[in-house]
Amino acid sequence: MADLIDDLRASLPDGAVLTDPDLLRGHQRDEADLCEYGMPAVVVRPRTTGEVAAVIKIAAARGTPVVPQGARTGLAGAANAVDGAIVLSTAAMDRIVEVDPVNRIAVVQPGVVNAALAAEVGRHGLRYPPDPGSWESSTIGGNVATNAGGMCCVKYGVTAEYVLGLEVVLASGEVLRTGRRTAKGVAGYDLTRLFVGSEGTLGVITEITLSLRPAAEESLTLVAVFPSTAAAGAAVAAISARGLTPSLLELLDQTHLIALEAYRPMGLRTDAKALLLAASDTGPRAAADLERIAALCEEAGADEVYAATDAEEAAALLQARRNAHGAMEKYAAEAFPHGNGGLIIDDVAVPRSALAALLDGTEKIAAEHGVAIGVVGHAGDGNMHPNIVVDRADPASVAQCRRAFDDIMALGLSLGGTCTGEHGVGLLKRAWLAEEIGPVGLAVHTAIKQALDPAGLLNPGKVL
Amino acid sequence: MADLIDDLRASLPDGAVLTDPDLLRGHQRDEADLCEYGMPAVVVRPRTTGEVAAVIKIAAARGTPVVPQGARTGLAGAANAVDGAIVLSTAAMDRIVEVDPVNRIAVVQPGVVNAALAAEVGRHGLRYPPDPGSWESSTIGGNVATNAGGMCCVKYGVTAEYVLGLEVVLASGEVLRTGRRTAKGVAGYDLTRLFVGSEGTLGVITEITLSLRPAAEESLTLVAVFPSTAAAGAAVAAISARGLTPSLLELLDQTHLIALEAYRPMGLRTDAKALLLAASDTGPRAAADLERIAALCEEAGADEVYAATDAEEAAALLQARRNAHGAMEKYAAEAFPHGNGGLIIDDVAVPRSALAALLDGTEKIAAEHGVAIGVVGHAGDGNMHPNIVVDRADPASVAQCRRAFDDIMALGLSLGGTCTGEHGVGLLKRAWLAEEIGPVGLAVHTAIKQALDPAGLLNPGKVL
Repeated sequence: MADLIDDLRASLPDGAVLTDPDLLRGHQRDEADLCEYGMPAVVVRPRTTGEVAAVIKIAAARGTPVVPQGARTGLAGAANAVDGAIVLSTAAMDRIVEVDPVNRIAVVQPGVVNAALAAEVGRHGLRYPPDPGSWESSTIGGNVATNAGGMCCVKYGVTAEYVLGLEVVLASGEVLRTGRRTAKGVAGYDLTRLFVGSEGTLGVITEITLSLRPAAEESLTLVAVFPSTAAAGAAVAAISARGLTPSLLELLDQTHLIALEAYRPMGLRTDAKALLLAASDTGPRAAADLERIAALCEEAGADEVYAATDAEEAAALLQARRNAHGAMEKYAAEAFPHGNGGLIIDDVAVPRSALAALLDGTEKIAAEHGVAIGVVGHAGDGNMHPNIVVDRADPASVAQCRRAFDDIMALGLSLGGTCTGEHGVGLLKRAWLAEEIGPVGLAVHTAIKQALDPAGLLNPGKVL
Repeated sequence: MADLIDDLRASLPDGAVLTDPDLLRGHQRDEADLCEYGMPAVVVRPRTTGEVAAVIKIAAARGTPVVPQGARTGLAGAANAVDGAIVLSTAAMDRIVEVDPVNRIAVVQPGVVNAALAAEVGRHGLRYPPDPGSWESSTIGGNVATNAGGMCCVKYGVTAEYVLGLEVVLASGEVLRTGRRTAKGVAGYDLTRLFVGSEGTLGVITEITLSLRPAAEESLTLVAVFPSTAAAGAAVAAISARGLTPSLLELLDQTHLIALEAYRPMGLRTDAKALLLAASDTGPRAAADLERIAALCEEAGADEVYAATDAEEAAALLQARRNAHGAMEKYAAEAFPHGNGGLIIDDVAVPRSALAALLDGTEKIAAEHGVAIGVVGHAGDGNMHPNIVVDRADPASVAQCRRAFDDIMALGLSLGGTCTGEHGVGLLKRAWLAEEIGPVGLAVHTAIKQALDPAGLLNPGKVL
C-alpha cells in the first residue's frame, strides 16, 4: 500500500494524491441506493491526460483496480469504490479548452460541470442541450460515461448525440483519440459511441469534443391535469402519434404533486392523479403546437388544461419539475418516524405507446407490495422514474421495496422496454442488463471488455 | 468447393444458392474505383435470419470467408468479393416487417431499398430522412453497414442517428440483438453503433429497427452563384457561425455545372465557379431564414442569389444536384477518346470553417498534377466529393489520379478533417484510416475485430 502511494506521489504533483480517511470515506459511493461500496486505498486528482496515464500505468503494473469518479451524482452505483482501489477523480480536470462558434464545437476536460459549460457556450450564442437533473453539479465526463439524459431529450436527444470525439486513457495507459471535429465522418468503427455510456469500464475519458446547437428560443408552456395516470399516458401516445415534438413533455404523479406542495407550495392541484408539463420552442408556431397538444390532452380526458401566462410562470413550473426529486426525498424522509425514510430511485423506459400500461402496472405493484411509489419522468420519451419510499432502518421494508423495484423492471421489459432509460447499469441493474440483452449480448459485452481491459482493472464489477 | 455448395444447398431453400459464372461475375464488386476484387465461389440469397445463420455456420466450419452485399452501390470497395468467398446477398431479405406510427418506428429486413422504405413510411405520414445519392437502389442494410449520409444530413443527420436496434448474425452463427424500441435507453455498451458503419466486418445485419420522423414540411429553396469556390466556402462558414440550420446546403463547382448543362440543360450558369443550393423547411419562418442565408451569400461575394419561384423549380434544382454524379460520369467518359474516361470519386469532410481552404487546396492539387477535378458535395457538413477524371486505359493517368487522390486525403487530414465523411473505408481508404486514427486507434480496432471475428472470416481485408 505504502508503495502504491509512493509510486503515485512520485508521478503526480503535490496535492494530487489524497489519503485522508475522511476524504476517502467521502469518495466511497455515488447517490444510488441498494448498492455495495468499498474503501479505496487512495484518491487521486490528476489535472492532465499525462497524469491520468501515469496513474493507469501504475495501477496496471501493480494490478490495482481503478474507479473513475466525476461528481458522484450517479444513481446506479457506477462510481462506487471497491476495497483497495485507486479512486481517480476528474474533479480537477475542469478546463473548457475551446469553444468554436463557427463549427459549433466545444472541447472540454471531463471535470467541467454541466452548468458551467452551458453558461460558457451561452456567452457565444450557443447551447449544450443535455440537462440531467444533476446538471448544476454533475460533470461532463460523468454525463458522457453514463450517457446522461434529462428533460431536453424528447426533442434534443441524450448526451451521446452531442459527443463528436473523445480522448481516452486505455487500461494499458496508452492514449486513444476517437472521433472527429467534423459534422460527419465514418472512418472506422464508432469507438466514440463505444466509450460513451460504458461507465468507466473500458477506459478513462480525459477530453471530450462536443457538438453544440444554436441558442434555444423562448418556449411556451402548458399544464394538463389528469384524473388518472393512464389518461396522461394516453395523451402522450396521442401527441407522439400526431407527429408533434414538444421541447419538453414531463409527467408528475399525485405523490409528487403532494410532495412538491409540501416542499414549495405553488398551488399545484394535489387532487390530480397526474400532471403533464409540455413546452414548445418552435417560434412562430409554438402557440399553435401547444393548442394541438392541449386538444389531445383534453381528448385523453384531462380535467384542466392551462397555459403558463408568462415566462415567469413557465420558469416556476419548470423549477417545480426540477424540484421533484428533492421534494420526494423530503417526503420519503418524513414518511418514517426515525428520519430513516429514503427513496429508491428507479429508471425504466418503454415505447411511448406502452406508457399508460407502465403507469397502471406500477400502481398495481405498489398496492401488491404495500409500498408507496411516486412516479415522475420524461413522459415524451416513455422514460419514467418510479420512486419507492423505503424505511432504510427496517430490513423488511428494504426487502419489500427491492421486490417492488424488481417487479417494475420485469414489467418494463415485458412492455418492450429497457431496464435503464438514462441512469445506467452500474451495480444496481447488472442482473437486469443480463436479462435484457440475453446470453449472446452478454458474451459480446464480455468479449469487448476483455479485449480492452484484459486484467479487469477498470471499474471492476460495474455493468457486467 | 463442391462440398461447400452441397452444404449450402442442404441448408437453404431452392434457388438461394447460385453458382452461374455470369452471376458470380456480377457480384464481384461495388462501384468503387481503384479497388481489387476476386471471384466468389458462390452467391447465396437467404430470406431469413435462420438462413443467414446457417450460411455463417457452414462458413465458420469450413474456414470460408463471407462477403455481405446489399445493392453493391458502395463507393469504397467494402462489398468487393475475395477469391473463393461466399457472397451473402441480402437482396431477397426485402420485407418491411412493421411500421409503428405511435412510436415512430419501422422494423425492416436489410434488403429493403431505401426508396421503398421512404415510400412506405410516407403512407403513414412519417419520414425516414437518410437519403444517400443511391437511395433509389441502395438497401437499408447497406446504408446501415456503411453509415450512409446524403443531402438531409446538414439538418437531419446520418443513418446511424436513425438506428435504434439491430439483429446481427455473429461470426459464430449466433444471433445477437442490440438496442431497443424505446426513445431512450442506456443499458450496456452501445453495440448498435458498433455495428453501424462496420462494413460487414463484425457480423451480418439481418434486421434493423429504425426511428422515424414526422413527415417533412414543404421547403423553400435558393440558389447562390459565386465567382470562386473559396467565396462559396466562406458563405457556408458564415451560415454556420450565425446559427442557421438549412435543411439542405449543397455545393456544385464549375466543372459539375458544365457537366450538368451538357447532360440535362436547365440554364445553370456555367460561367460561375461555384453554386450553392440551400433550402429551409422551418414553415412560417423559412422565408426569413432563407433571406438571412441570401444576405450572408451576398456578403461572402455571391454574384447572384435567387429563390426558386415555385415548388417545381425547387424540385428541378434538387434533381440537378441528384444528377450531378451521372452528369460527371458522362463528362469523364467523354473526356478521353476511347470511352475509357472514368471518375475516381473521393469523399472527405473537414470542419466547416476549413471548407474554403479545402476547395482552394483541391484546385491547386488539380493544377499540380495536371488532372481535372470536379467538386460537389454536402457543403453544410463540410463533406465534399472531389471527383477526379481519369483515363482508365492509361496507367500513367491512373497513377497521376491516385497521387491527386492521396494529396486530397492528406489535405483533408491536415485541415482537421476525416478521410471519409460518408462513403466508408472499404478497401479504398484503409491506409488513410490508419493514418487518421494512428497506431493506438488501429490496435483498438484490431482488438475489437479479433474479439468478434477471431478467425477473420467476415468481409476479410475491409476497413483494417
